[in-house]
Amino acid sequence: MTMMMNSLNEISEYLKKADNFAILTHKYPDGDTLGSAFALCRALRQIGKRAKVIVNGSLAGKFRYLENGMEDQIFEYEAVVAVDIASASLLGDLEDEFGGKVDVSVDHHGMNVPFAKMTYVNEKAAANTENVYFLIKLLGARIDRDIANCLYTGICTDTGCFKFSNVTSDTMRIAAELMDIGCDSSEINRVMFDTKSLARIKIERAVLDTLTLHCGEKIAVIHTTMQMEKETGAGESDMDGLAAIPRQIEGVVIGITVKEKGDNYYRVSVRTVGDYSAAEICKAFGGGGHHAAGGCSLEGTLEQVREKIIEAAEKELKRAC
Amino acid sequence: MTMMMNSLNEISEYLKKADNFAILTHKYPDGDTLGSAFALCRALRQIGKRAKVIVNGSLAGKFRYLENGMEDQIFEYEAVVAVDIASASLLGDLEDEFGGKVDVSVDHHGMNVPFAKMTYVNEKAAANTENVYFLIKLLGARIDRDIANCLYTGICTDTGCFKFSNVTSDTMRIAAELMDIGCDSSEINRVMFDTKSLARIKIERAVLDTLTLHCGEKIAVIHTTMQMEKETGAGESDMDGLAAIPRQIEGVVIGITVKEKGDNYYRVSVRTVGDYSAAEICKAFGGGGHHAAGGCSLEGTLEQVREKIIEAAEKELKRAC
Repeated sequence: MTMMMNSLNEISEYLKKADNFAILTHKYPDGDTLGSAFALCRALRQIGKRAKVIVNGSLAGKFRYLENGMEDQIFEYEAVVAVDIASASLLGDLEDEFGGKVDVSVDHHGMNVPFAKMTYVNEKAAANTENVYFLIKLLGARIDRDIANCLYTGICTDTGCFKFSNVTSDTMRIAAELMDIGCDSSEINRVMFDTKSLARIKIERAVLDTLTLHCGEKIAVIHTTMQMEKETGAGESDMDGLAAIPRQIEGVVIGITVKEKGDNYYRVSVRTVGDYSAAEICKAFGGGGHHAAGGCSLEGTLEQVREKIIEAAEKELKRAC
Repeated sequence: MTMMMNSLNEISEYLKKADNFAILTHKYPDGDTLGSAFALCRALRQIGKRAKVIVNGSLAGKFRYLENGMEDQIFEYEAVVAVDIASASLLGDLEDEFGGKVDVSVDHHGMNVPFAKMTYVNEKAAANTENVYFLIKLLGARIDRDIANCLYTGICTDTGCFKFSNVTSDTMRIAAELMDIGCDSSEINRVMFDTKSLARIKIERAVLDTLTLHCGEKIAVIHTTMQMEKETGAGESDMDGLAAIPRQIEGVVIGITVKEKGDNYYRVSVRTVGDYSAAEICKAFGGGGHHAAGGCSLEGTLEQVREKIIEAAEKELKRAC
């Protein structure tokens, strides 16, 4: 299969010519891949195509509104579109059926590894639904309220509700247009950002009990154990974002989260602010990452792991002074 | 003093004619009143006026950047401008010096009680800095990066970082323009929304220990005691927003927060979602509020107060079924 990078216009022309679409989301589907898929599916149907979204796994309850009012269409797919999928490995369970058969990929990940016949990557888009927004316009479909809800979902979930540094003025202007169309922005925000599972509340409480501060309260450390996960009933999604907690504390410049993953085996997340490098701290243990966020794995007892990573953080604190 | 409602254009013309300005913020100054004041002050200076911001109380550390690079100007004020001040009572300690002497008031509170000679109220503005944005344009000043930071601060803090239902497409478009000018949106967001005091972390942990669920986990109740405030060192600002916690729990439709305020005296906040009325629950105890948020005061022991308010919430649960 020849792979090449394409313009959004070329992608649009290709889609206009085909008829029966399967649209794929990445594994552990989030608001951006789902929003991209359902928005594109609705737009293709609107211009007279048949299209279905193949959700990679199950559609979480909070995302059900994305498919509101959509009828099942029974057909054989001719063209396969991947949205927000940075590499073939993220096809997960869909690999068997669709591996090597993806025609079009529309993505916003800078580290995208092309796996489709045609690929459009715009890494300046905070959310991939920004790309889908422009694609829908090229297709000549009208952005109705349902499509606006799908597009908005991708934008708000991939930007932490317009909080992260990936937000651009384009992001804001597209969101403005979606709001003018009447998307349920404030209700979507409430569901995505003001709702926590009981298990999440419980694991947060448990995690705060493990908080320790070091080096004049510049380093903060929390941990989770498998026992804590069991006791609180917290699953993968409930654990999401816990690593943001220690660095949120006023004055803390290095936030560390230690997660027990197996017997004497821990996964460590490091978040920093200012001149301190998370990647530098994690490198010492064979890990890596970016300046502000990094990760590594450590072996030993919880106490040993905490001690080792705090020591490395102290070193970075002195290095960057 | 004759009071009348004015257009923003009339306000602008008045400001152009005057020269030496005192700009007032409301008591317990927040990001919107401060952002409004510093933005207007900078704009007036830019067009050749002398102006100073009278901060109502002390300027919190996290807001220091609003006055970055501004020189002290020593002069006698001739004109007094109030920004984001809904009524004279919110002048607080400034009442003595400025009470009855405010020339211009620019505000966005629907329940504004005019107290200035000229008043402009636009309640559709999610933040008052949206009004100040338009005022600055009318004044013929250029929105530079410093002014953009002040305006953005008001917008993001008064909208919970674009999360609340007050956000309009205008809000988004103004923010987009401020970002194009180069405002430090993501750093401001980090300071305002990803930073918690240690006392806040501690009171949150303590509060989560008091969480109880009732009526099939549809009602959630938390409480704080004066003892908890003392032990965690939490002040007024650290307690802000705690009342949002119980309703955030998935499935919870009535969230209740009971705060000990004195001997056998409690302040209760109720937050609801969907058909359930917070105002209805609070009315039974002489309180009130809106559909989704209400408050009341109750006397008795903590157990008695919890019991009474839960009983009222159960009644509302049945009524609205």
